[in-house]
Amino acid sequence: MYSYDQLFNFSKEVFIAMGHSEEMSLSAAKVLISADLRGVDSHGIARLKGYVRLWEVDRINAQPKIKVVHETPSTAVVDADGALGLIAGPEAMKIAMEKAENVGTGWVSVKNSNHYGIAGYHSMMALDKDMIGISMTNASPLVAPTFSKERMLGTNPISVAIPADKQPPFVADMATTTAANGKLEVLQRKNEEAPLGWVQDKEGKPTTNAKGVQEGGALLPLGGDRDHASHKGYILGSIVDIFSSVLSGANYGPWVPPFVSFIDPLPNLVGEGLGHFFGAMRVDAFRPKEEFLGHMDNWIERFRNAEPVNSGVKVQIPGDYERGMEAERSQKGIKLLDPVIEDLKGLGDKFGIKFL
Amino acid sequence: MYSYDQLFNFSKEVFIAMGHSEEMSLSAAKVLISADLRGVDSHGIARLKGYVRLWEVDRINAQPKIKVVHETPSTAVVDADGALGLIAGPEAMKIAMEKAENVGTGWVSVKNSNHYGIAGYHSMMALDKDMIGISMTNASPLVAPTFSKERMLGTNPISVAIPADKQPPFVADMATTTAANGKLEVLQRKNEEAPLGWVQDKEGKPTTNAKGVQEGGALLPLGGDRDHASHKGYILGSIVDIFSSVLSGANYGPWVPPFVSFIDPLPNLVGEGLGHFFGAMRVDAFRPKEEFLGHMDNWIERFRNAEPVNSGVKVQIPGDYERGMEAERSQKGIKLLDPVIEDLKGLGDKFGIKFL
Repeated sequence: MYSYDQLFNFSKEVFIAMGHSEEMSLSAAKVLISADLRGVDSHGIARLKGYVRLWEVDRINAQPKIKVVHETPSTAVVDADGALGLIAGPEAMKIAMEKAENVGTGWVSVKNSNHYGIAGYHSMMALDKDMIGISMTNASPLVAPTFSKERMLGTNPISVAIPADKQPPFVADMATTTAANGKLEVLQRKNEEAPLGWVQDKEGKPTTNAKGVQEGGALLPLGGDRDHASHKGYILGSIVDIFSSVLSGANYGPWVPPFVSFIDPLPNLVGEGLGHFFGAMRVDAFRPKEEFLGHMDNWIERFRNAEPVNSGVKVQIPGDYERGMEAERSQKGIKLLDPVIEDLKGLGDKFGIKFL
Repeated sequence: MYSYDQLFNFSKEVFIAMGHSEEMSLSAAKVLISADLRGVDSHGIARLKGYVRLWEVDRINAQPKIKVVHETPSTAVVDADGALGLIAGPEAMKIAMEKAENVGTGWVSVKNSNHYGIAGYHSMMALDKDMIGISMTNASPLVAPTFSKERMLGTNPISVAIPADKQPPFVADMATTTAANGKLEVLQRKNEEAPLGWVQDKEGKPTTNAKGVQEGGALLPLGGDRDHASHKGYILGSIVDIFSSVLSGANYGPWVPPFVSFIDPLPNLVGEGLGHFFGAMRVDAFRPKEEFLGHMDNWIERFRNAEPVNSGVKVQIPGDYERGMEAERSQKGIKLLDPVIEDLKGLGDKFGIKFL
């Protein structure tokens, strides 16, 4: 078991060793380890080695000049200059919130970035300011649209965070696929099969093979098959792709650079890096704050108390699971898998930082 | 077979007979019949009788004073004053577009409204102005959240319309359930069963009974069951509900007034009428218009040419199906079912308007 502080400090030191400033390293470590804390193990410190490798092949710039390249009172495009998305994300979200402060809402599309950790970290930044936060990103192409054999989209998550008053906030953070990659990794480790509707094989046929994606297949959009409206998952992933990259000038669809350093980006790229999209809406840009927050409390209470199918399993509010994990792991610490510990020891050796 | 003009003119006359102005009647008929034209028969003229019945029980105001009650440079809340959503929708979308003209984007939440036809009509209004249009609405509670026996949400659709240059636009318009009610109605008429994942029975158990909702069950959120991420459909429907009604002051969740006139709204309502949410984003608020439109063309062409599973079935772009229907029905006319024709004749008799 590792404490939050241990993982945070180690990651921060690694980011510094890559050449990032103290401030950027602190910001990146905070985003990264928020994933471990909230139970999204696939997006946390387990990815640190991947980020380092991308930096080693010059696909991450540790001294980026992140800047606004186009704007209106409620919008901006940010050029992340090859930064870690872990650093560009919070910068861009801050700009969206400043614009919301001024004109009610702010919308920022980011190009020339990299993976940005969990989508929910960025949307949740808005909560303290009584704003609704929105965050989405495209990612390495692993998902086949309905009727396609080819991988055209990433798991392209959408996060929406909505403040309440006495109730904890509504925090949705979802991949637009039936199952996130992390869930398949769990099955792969246990050598178990996946339910139909998660993966197709390289011929485009439904499969229960949890390793189907590695064997040339693809993840399936939310819905899973045509009868269960997989075209809607494809629609959602496409909207994320277009807002993140066609609006900003980043790469979209199959051109999004892969997260793994051993696969080169495609030739003849259509944009720069990968893209994100952020939004912030002041709730009092719509109605008095107290009214909004009071009704959100009521919304949450009413849904929590919806009559359950099974009296032992209550209806959940988006964010409940992650909040539970955060409470538990803040107290008891974070467990890492052996291969992850090995990776971190390796990084420690590489940079002369001790991993506890 | 009926021509677009026949159905449009008849509906317009009915709206006038209800006491609407010429201008409002024209606007409402245009939205209503756009559904028939685009192949969404459940939301078109088949609903005209339902709107009239709501008016008869004083739940629709034919002489509404639609007004902005709260605003910032990029946002507004509109009080629809009990109008048809078919009338309030385009009014509110126009306000969103004016704000986008001024500050880059515009976001309008509407209260005290009624059903607004197809979501896609409103989002598509933005296309001519080289804006991205967004439209969503809550609706009569028919959908059970994951783990719930109780109906808490409507089919709460989301529509996003994105302009392109030489390619036709990307127009997504999707219920946040696995299947829209219209699809179940088709099965009911044929006495066929529904795939598992569309409906649960009144005990909350999965069922293939296409009449399950009428028999006390519920529609299921996109995903269908927990293994296929129905919580994501529940999240999407919830976001639509909150943006449409908690932001505006309309009713949300189980309090949304039912579309049918013979079920009274619940006592102790939490807001006024039902709610919609509209957004407009100028594409040139993010990057030069030509660049954006050119890359959208490229996005659409690349996805259309994704390698298909079956060489006879190409990957589709959102909006292709409805465009095909519109082309066909503009030429060949619109076929109505006998019960719909009977309803329309009845309306004609009631108001002294001849239905051809």
